[in-house]
Amino acid sequence: MYSVCVRDHIMIAHSFRGEVFGPAQRLHGATYVVDVEFRRPALDPDGLVVDIGLASQTLRAVLSDLDYRNLDEEPAFLGQNTTTEFLARVIFDRVVEQIAAGALGAAAREITAIRVLLSESHVAWAAYESELPHPAQP
Amino acid sequence: MYSVCVRDHIMIAHSFRGEVFGPAQRLHGATYVVDVEFRRPALDPDGLVVDIGLASQTLRAVLSDLDYRNLDEEPAFLGQNTTTEFLARVIFDRVVEQIAAGALGAAAREITAIRVLLSESHVAWAAYESELPHPAQP
Amino acid sequence: MYSVCVRDHIMIAHSFRGEVFGPAQRLHGATYVVDVEFRRPALDPDGLVVDIGLASQTLRAVLSDLDYRNLDEEPAFLGQNTTTEFLARVIFDRVVEQIAAGALGAAAREITAIRVLLSESHVAWAAYESELPHPAQP
Amino acid sequence: MYSVCVRDHIMIAHSFRGEVFGPAQRLHGATYVVDVEFRRPALDPDGLVVDIGLASQTLRAVLSDLDYRNLDEEPAFLGQNTTTEFLARVIFDRVVEQIAAGALGAAAREITAIRVLLSESHVAWAAYESELPHPAQP
Amino acid sequence: MYSVCVRDHIMIAHSFRGEVFGPAQRLHGATYVVDVEFRRPALDPDGLVVDIGLASQTLRAVLSDLDYRNLDEEPAFLGQNTTTEFLARVIFDRVVEQIAAGALGAAAREITAIRVLLSESHVAWAAYESELPHPAQP
Amino acid sequence: MYSVCVRDHIMIAHSFRGEVFGPAQRLHGATYVVDVEFRRPALDPDGLVVDIGLASQTLRAVLSDLDYRNLDEEPAFLGQNTTTEFLARVIFDRVVEQIAAGALGAAAREITAIRVLLSESHVAWAAYESELPHPAQP
Repeated sequence: MYSVCVRDHIMIAHSFRGEVFGPAQRLHGATYVVDVEFRRPALDPDGLVVDIGLASQTLRAVLSDLDYRNLDEEPAFLGQNTTTEFLARVIFDRVVEQIAAGALGAAAREITAIRVLLSESHVAWAAYESELPHPAQP
Repeated sequence: MYSVCVRDHIMIAHSFRGEVFGPAQRLHGATYVVDVEFRRPALDPDGLVVDIGLASQTLRAVLSDLDYRNLDEEPAFLGQNTTTEFLARVIFDRVVEQIAAGALGAAAREITAIRVLLSESHVAWAAYESELPHPAQP
Repeated sequence: MYSVCVRDHIMIAHSFRGEVFGPAQRLHGATYVVDVEFRRPALDPDGLVVDIGLASQTLRAVLSDLDYRNLDEEPAFLGQNTTTEFLARVIFDRVVEQIAAGALGAAAREITAIRVLLSESHVAWAAYESELPHPAQP
Repeated sequence: MYSVCVRDHIMIAHSFRGEVFGPAQRLHGATYVVDVEFRRPALDPDGLVVDIGLASQTLRAVLSDLDYRNLDEEPAFLGQNTTTEFLARVIFDRVVEQIAAGALGAAAREITAIRVLLSESHVAWAAYESELPHPAQP
Repeated sequence: MYSVCVRDHIMIAHSFRGEVFGPAQRLHGATYVVDVEFRRPALDPDGLVVDIGLASQTLRAVLSDLDYRNLDEEPAFLGQNTTTEFLARVIFDRVVEQIAAGALGAAAREITAIRVLLSESHVAWAAYESELPHPAQP
Repeated sequence: MYSVCVRDHIMIAHSFRGEVFGPAQRLHGATYVVDVEFRRPALDPDGLVVDIGLASQTLRAVLSDLDYRNLDEEPAFLGQNTTTEFLARVIFDRVVEQIAAGALGAAAREITAIRVLLSESHVAWAAYESELPHPAQP
């Protein structure tokens, strides 16, 4: 299995509901350094897992809808704790949609799995990974 | 699959027996930066893999029994080379015991796999990972 | 010149005023990984720049007043853009106050300079450093 | 499953053919920080996944054939884009050959899988991983 | 003294002349992760050392003239070993030119010193730093 | 001012005397990742601060006398707490001796300052830096 991973980041505000969150129930924020790993069993004719330029652009486009925002006010997340692990899944789903829409090129439809990993500090990270339906579909 | 990972560290002394270890047969030591990754296929009702506060406390408790010690004198490791990979397993087993004992809360019993990774320097690390019995039991 | 540095982190929300900030004028947030470096020309009788345990506790105490907060609502920062470089200075001043108050022990009054460095992502950081008055005074 | 990973690096020149590569069609270069992870389900009698000294020596030997070279002029890669993911596979194959040849010792033939990860910058990496035939054979 | 630092990278090919360079006399290459630190004794009215957006754009513009190139063929470097420390100085000079030309805004002319640090691998880096003439001039 | 820095590491055992050290009074150990930064105002005729190959070899030679040892039993450190900051100074002194003895070549006698930084974990480091006498002398 081959992998290619690209990195970018977002800076967001949010708060959590539930006693388990302690002081994180207050409005606070985070920098998430976001790694998206694309996997496939064979390389394309150019010797690539994915066009790394398109992958970076697509990741930036997906992150732009979250970046510099208060996630408590985003309609998509109403009533939801936007934990690091939850956001990893959100970004996963949106990257898969982009692949299905062709944003990473036709060859990228051969990607079989994706892992999205969000580092929230030097001591904690969360991730979501899954195989993709084939060909990738929204 | 979702993951959450927390990081802490220990500073220990030990020595190894066997010619394969060369100069590491002498009494020396290591800082191990310890990453414990918890995995489960679905989030709990709070949107969590695990209560990250409890996970950090539990990791600290497990590591406290090893930290600032000469492992050559620990009864639990008599006759055993405490290699990095061996210690990854020791920490794995003790974290699993803590989950079974409820230290990470009832929801944490849904954790299906754990990976423990010990970085011993900027050029080497070792890990142990395994699926857990369900529900997690000591 | 000797140095010792300890690391911790905070997760805060804030917004900036001024067109220069672009999308960062919206309420957003950041994880700041905070490094505080203590400098002095000679070691104390124990062979230390500073008691690293006290240094870590003091840094945590200073950061606790900022952690998991919306800095836009902190009275201390009214009318102020809480940029990364500004926050580095805030933490510097508060650490110096703690030294003067004896929180790092009597020997720590020999510290001659401090540098506070805040990493806001994998691609940007800011810092404030200065010599201290002697003996360190608030 | 146990893992041990060792790290080294190479500094190479190359160019790519195909419009997808944009400016990387020009002769340029890269530092690849190379992580090779060895996996096996049980430790050997010494408590090891692999003799880390032999693993490091073997990795250096494999990398020496690539290091400080223009890969466009290497006969082994004629007509091939030496992308990061392609090189991960090349290094994987050569490490497997070394195991089969006994370079990592007899016990290393119990290794069941290897992952080779090449970091090309602070924002991108690629990898190749696979189970090994048993016993490992070239 | 305040600092702000931004990071980007380049991927170049080059070779060195002189026996001291050993195998690096062959055509090879490097990824340089480039950190540019801007220093000034007081913040501007917005609470900034420098507009981090302009700083990042300026760094990218400066690096674009080097990126994805064989430095042996660049007229600017004829007869020169483009060592890491030499390139740190080149980037320093070009960033200073940009400040003088106003690329970082009028307030950036208060910057009093710059440090450019190039990491060439996980085990080696080089840097060039200097005070600037005031106001910054090419 | 130009800098070049090389990195290596040691794994040692030791204990500390004095109540300030708490549990670190017990025999324990550490991995120290060691960065040695060489500084000089102008490059040598090859465009170098120092021959990076000789610098790495010299650092390894200096570290070999400490590596895989119990520092409590080293005659050189009797009655001394081998704190991280103390060891930074020890390595500094020994590197300066090597420069004076010619181990880094004649050109290296133009080095004007050195900084030795020891990272003991992901959350703490210590350093010693100083200008050198000229020409460098033991």
